[in-house]
Amino acid sequence: MSNHDTERSWLTTVLTRDIPLGQAMALEITRLDASGISLSLPLGPNINDKGTAFGGAMASAMILAGWSLPRLLLRREGIDADLVIGRCELRFLSPVDQDFQAHCDWPDPASLTLFLDQLGRRGRGRLDLAPRVTCADKIVASLEARYAALARGRLPDAENA
Amino acid sequence: MSNHDTERSWLTTVLTRDIPLGQAMALEITRLDASGISLSLPLGPNINDKGTAFGGAMASAMILAGWSLPRLLLRREGIDADLVIGRCELRFLSPVDQDFQAHCDWPDPASLTLFLDQLGRRGRGRLDLAPRVTCADKIVASLEARYAALARGRLPDAENA
Repeated sequence: MSNHDTERSWLTTVLTRDIPLGQAMALEITRLDASGISLSLPLGPNINDKGTAFGGAMASAMILAGWSLPRLLLRREGIDADLVIGRCELRFLSPVDQDFQAHCDWPDPASLTLFLDQLGRRGRGRLDLAPRVTCADKIVASLEARYAALARGRLPDAENA
Repeated sequence: MSNHDTERSWLTTVLTRDIPLGQAMALEITRLDASGISLSLPLGPNINDKGTAFGGAMASAMILAGWSLPRLLLRREGIDADLVIGRCELRFLSPVDQDFQAHCDWPDPASLTLFLDQLGRRGRGRLDLAPRVTCADKIVASLEARYAALARGRLPDAENA
């Protein structure tokens, strides 16, 4: 398997077995490459009372799409750290009446270098990411999130996602 | 049954059958009274890879706790409107390593009157709510959310939650 295939298999286990809500959402990784990640989610398990996508399901999908990228970076670098989300701003832009996708792009290399450098020097690295949800190629929700990697053995002040 | 018991039964159906993710989260309404609503969630189905509560599950629980109050108000007033979440800011404050609760308080009566008045006059009413998650009586996550009620038959520009 290519590196991306191996990573996709590993990440699928994390997102759908270690995080059971990912399985309840029937989340699948449909793209993992040098530009970023895409998750696909069927409407059925993620529907709301209005027959459109539940905002919490879209929030969860974006949180996971964003989280996946620094998680993979830590794995590639062999770094033992927890990766958590601290604060974020969500926007819901349009109703979603069919299957949808959550995407996140890799940030620029300088941001990744700074993230790893902070983590190595101070035991805590921060990375801002902007995942989004699309439906029929239209952006229907967006997230601006700050993720933090915490070297194991240090006291976290935020540890979710 | 008292009004609150009848409402609790109706709302349980909405939150766990019309919104299947609520059932996957094993959400239960533990309090519904004149001061607000509390939902309880077991850690098990809402856990993440670190053995703590998944941020998306806490976000979903807060979105639903907040949404429930204006939804009940619309039901009490016999108003046929969709109720959606437009934008919100999430904060994750502490790791959650056991069952947790999501709460939302009723806002002041003047805000509710304005919400219903806007909806009646313009077909769209807005209400700001601040749900929170607690674990062992400590606030561990918070949400500031704007909800919008849209009279049916009007074109929404946001329709999620």
